[in-house]
Amino acid sequence: MKEVEALARQAREAAQAMARTSAEVKNRALQAMAQGLLDRHAEILEANAADLSVAEEKGHPAAFLDRLRLNAERVQGMARGLQEVAALPDPVGEVTGVARRPNGLWVGRMRVPLGVIAVLYESRPNVTADVTGLCLKAGNVVLLRGGSEAIRSNTTIAAVLTAAAEGAGLPKGAVGIVEVTDRAAVHALLKLDRYIDLVIPRGGEELVRTVRETSTIPVIAHEKGLCHMYVDAAADLPMAEELVFNAKVERPGVCNAVETLLVHEQVAADFLPKVGARLAAAGVELRGCPKTRTVLAHLPEATEKDWETEYLDLILAIKVVDSFEKAVAHIHRYGSGLAEGIVTADYRRGMRFLQEVDAGAVFVNASTRFADGGEFGLGAEIGISTQKLHARGPMGLKELTCEKFIVLGDGQVRDSRRPAG
Amino acid sequence: MKEVEALARQAREAAQAMARTSAEVKNRALQAMAQGLLDRHAEILEANAADLSVAEEKGHPAAFLDRLRLNAERVQGMARGLQEVAALPDPVGEVTGVARRPNGLWVGRMRVPLGVIAVLYESRPNVTADVTGLCLKAGNVVLLRGGSEAIRSNTTIAAVLTAAAEGAGLPKGAVGIVEVTDRAAVHALLKLDRYIDLVIPRGGEELVRTVRETSTIPVIAHEKGLCHMYVDAAADLPMAEELVFNAKVERPGVCNAVETLLVHEQVAADFLPKVGARLAAAGVELRGCPKTRTVLAHLPEATEKDWETEYLDLILAIKVVDSFEKAVAHIHRYGSGLAEGIVTADYRRGMRFLQEVDAGAVFVNASTRFADGGEFGLGAEIGISTQKLHARGPMGLKELTCEKFIVLGDGQVRDSRRPAG
Repeated sequence: MKEVEALARQAREAAQAMARTSAEVKNRALQAMAQGLLDRHAEILEANAADLSVAEEKGHPAAFLDRLRLNAERVQGMARGLQEVAALPDPVGEVTGVARRPNGLWVGRMRVPLGVIAVLYESRPNVTADVTGLCLKAGNVVLLRGGSEAIRSNTTIAAVLTAAAEGAGLPKGAVGIVEVTDRAAVHALLKLDRYIDLVIPRGGEELVRTVRETSTIPVIAHEKGLCHMYVDAAADLPMAEELVFNAKVERPGVCNAVETLLVHEQVAADFLPKVGARLAAAGVELRGCPKTRTVLAHLPEATEKDWETEYLDLILAIKVVDSFEKAVAHIHRYGSGLAEGIVTADYRRGMRFLQEVDAGAVFVNASTRFADGGEFGLGAEIGISTQKLHARGPMGLKELTCEKFIVLGDGQVRDSRRPAG
Repeated sequence: MKEVEALARQAREAAQAMARTSAEVKNRALQAMAQGLLDRHAEILEANAADLSVAEEKGHPAAFLDRLRLNAERVQGMARGLQEVAALPDPVGEVTGVARRPNGLWVGRMRVPLGVIAVLYESRPNVTADVTGLCLKAGNVVLLRGGSEAIRSNTTIAAVLTAAAEGAGLPKGAVGIVEVTDRAAVHALLKLDRYIDLVIPRGGEELVRTVRETSTIPVIAHEKGLCHMYVDAAADLPMAEELVFNAKVERPGVCNAVETLLVHEQVAADFLPKVGARLAAAGVELRGCPKTRTVLAHLPEATEKDWETEYLDLILAIKVVDSFEKAVAHIHRYGSGLAEGIVTADYRRGMRFLQEVDAGAVFVNASTRFADGGEFGLGAEIGISTQKLHARGPMGLKELTCEKFIVLGDGQVRDSRRPAG
């Protein structure tokens, strides 16, 4: 795996120059990359057609082919994404928390790029442009490794981006792509902690698990979205109906859609028939716990497996609980830590839910579907972290940087016998 | 390794209750733990004497025995440390950055504990009390695994702390200690990512490397401190002499002491004889590059190995460079990312050093010895991170927590066809 190591070493060398690049040059590069995608869309679509025909031959299902497919509109979407990132403020160089110590030293923190970020992703080729834009804007070098089925699309997009970036003044090596598609190459990459600062796996559970188990480089992972909405005894029931309907039906295939509905038993008899009928009319398959089935007798019984499943589909499991604490305990046990919501008009239970539920985003009286970098005002998002270290929840540009301490002195020396003032 | 898993599961269960514990109860527990150490110091010293006699029999060197040894004063030091942490502000519960989105949602971030923190450490038994105090204060559960040579001391201290903590109202399981001392137990622990949120290895390079290679849990490591001081062409030379002397001599055995001195060739002939004589008089062994030896002809030649070595001793390698850029390049290549300093009266080079040098703490005209949580105003430190993710440089209580998003709504639902405002 000499090739992968050479690529990573080149990335490390480019990182220093990249960190020094001004916002002006970075923005100009992102604009040039967007223009490059538009100008050379024919090349990109041709490479994509070759990927598609191989994937079709291999008998991949239609949903897979749809994720893999690019067209003029999707290429324009990638270009627009790069332009939007160019317009965001540059997070690098911000200095915060500067305070003067008793000995006269000024101590503060400066925001700087992480360095080299490797992104491992699966079949969508647009990820190539999206993650490159975000990593470069935050002053990092990016190492891309997409799925083998999209290899022609990805390498063509990367070549277009690289040419535009270097033409606009970014250092050589600021965008690297691993063209070797075997697993050994990924394995080798994940051990290069002396060159790479962060690995972001974007894909299914298997990819994430492999990365976590293999990597000696720090990982930020988006695992899965097993989200709950809890309708409290004190909920405004018409509001609860709107929120549950939105969180399940508006876009069921995404990670912030709700998979399990928890309902307090005091309101179950009132609430479940109404919301159940509306969900069923929208094509949602419902499954219920025994108490749910005392109200909605026609439902199939939800099993242990249902509480553990991220359906990503028009299916909803329903559980009736006899207390707020039981709802929180269920979320604690089965939730994936992405987004969790309560519907309540009770001040104290709303406050408790905010504090006690351990997830990247906790909602009171709003749809979990809002768990998204754009909706949260981050401008753009590279993913949603379901872990706690460094970044939790939707990750924007700031989460692709870190802070170092800066100390400005006037000749101060330390006497360790004298404690810090 | 059923025992380790049971311990970790118990820790996970305690984490929820611990996260809800008020600052008042946590502070009362820390005070009780301090009192417990003072009241039961005889037991602790007895266990320590048993550890010491085994270590002596095994022929461990005197420095090792000194790190292992406790006495009345050191026990008092542990108790005082806990009292000081009790007096610090509680980082948990802080809400920041709350902004109202165009759709009326309030979105902000709330600081919460990380959950379960495992700390792996080596021979100093006082670490048991120090890390327990910091982890608990930040609302976390702690899992301790010290060195096998200190097992009796550590388990006795942990038992004292646990009894006091539970007596003061902390949940059962808030302090856990792995009493199995074989390597298989550590290996098993490092795979329990479903129960443990963070591993902090505190010890030598070998321990850190093992943890990094084995762990599927996120790691924050303090690797080594290979720090440089660069004396620029525009340095105030008397100030430079004070700073270099302090950074090397004041306490040579610690990670923020300087190991390599870089000197601009324009000032080498002036500066090196003075600082060299003063360092030599203090017992420092000097080694020089060929250019250094044109000024200080009696020095042995510094080799590649010197640039890579953290001496932790009264030894200093000296290199003369012909430009600011060469100094930065040397630091980039050999520095461990802990603390780096420049001495200069030139505004532009001071600013460039701050921005271009990639380390946890970057100093202008001050001794690298100040790289320390207490000196930086963090109140206490659990260690110094030499990595970039989550925490960089000295780590205080805040670095033992994370932030989750909180969203306060009034029934908002999402329409994904309409982009976020």
